[in-house]
Amino acid sequence: MNTELLLKNLRSIPDFPIPGILFRDVTSLFKSAECMKELDDTLYEMYKECGITKVVGIESRGFVMGATLAVRLGAGFVPVRKPGKLPAETISESYSKEYGTDTIEIHKDAIDENDVVLLHDDLLATGGTMLAAYNLVKKMNPKRVMINFIIELDDLKGREIFPADAQIDSLLHLEGE
Amino acid sequence: MNTELLLKNLRSIPDFPIPGILFRDVTSLFKSAECMKELDDTLYEMYKECGITKVVGIESRGFVMGATLAVRLGAGFVPVRKPGKLPAETISESYSKEYGTDTIEIHKDAIDENDVVLLHDDLLATGGTMLAAYNLVKKMNPKRVMINFIIELDDLKGREIFPADAQIDSLLHLEGE
Repeated sequence: MNTELLLKNLRSIPDFPIPGILFRDVTSLFKSAECMKELDDTLYEMYKECGITKVVGIESRGFVMGATLAVRLGAGFVPVRKPGKLPAETISESYSKEYGTDTIEIHKDAIDENDVVLLHDDLLATGGTMLAAYNLVKKMNPKRVMINFIIELDDLKGREIFPADAQIDSLLHLEGE
Repeated sequence: MNTELLLKNLRSIPDFPIPGILFRDVTSLFKSAECMKELDDTLYEMYKECGITKVVGIESRGFVMGATLAVRLGAGFVPVRKPGKLPAETISESYSKEYGTDTIEIHKDAIDENDVVLLHDDLLATGGTMLAAYNLVKKMNPKRVMINFIIELDDLKGREIFPADAQIDSLLHLEGE
């Protein structure tokens, strides 16, 4: 992986969305054709031998490389979305946030026990959304579930809230604060 | 294009999100690896000679094939999002809906006068969001702007609200009501 290329193009924005957060803006990678290709090639190389049949992208930044990876791997693409956005029958999972709770949904028929699933989102911060997505997908009994992020903010220790046997891989390891 | 394959996999849901609407659920296409490949190949063949440098996807279903097409074309991917979601400096455009107005945003530095832009969303219904995105991108003075949808609901006549010289292409032409 050309880490230098990605880091050179990655914009960091202080105090967004709230004071104290150094926001890592993946849209500055997506905007670059060269970075899109680098991300696509790197993700493909990481997962090409895993037999993945479904890539699950978390709304909405996780849809971007989730979809390109699905095509490269010859897999289907499945969205995890906020409540009320998916039109057919769904199953949902709620999780705590700093203030209150959030809920995510997935189509009930999107994954079955023959699937090998890769969950993808752009960034691992505190990990609440992805853990909820992981629990949601596990309920559907696929053969295997893996988790991928473009960026992991190591200082926020999001990785620690997952079960010890969860397979989590991130392309870039940075700081979030 | 294998229209039969796409139509066979496309789920239609009556009365979603409101009574009277026959919702065309593109997630049923995305879920199928075969349909993802068919969409990706078809879109690539349509636009491969156009010199596209940026694919702009409309949040959030437009991110899916927008991103895969950007990678295939060797272009960058640019998201159009709801207000407050993009972290750097944005320009915005508001448009009327049946009840009230909506606003969309794009990063100010996402497109410049050297770009050839393809705007993509999953579905053309009444067209308000895409027209706003078209106006937004036009303000940034790219060399050329094209518009693409997977599905166009012909009976809703969304195409008619665009300027006569707008180049709009859709893969599937269906009815929405």
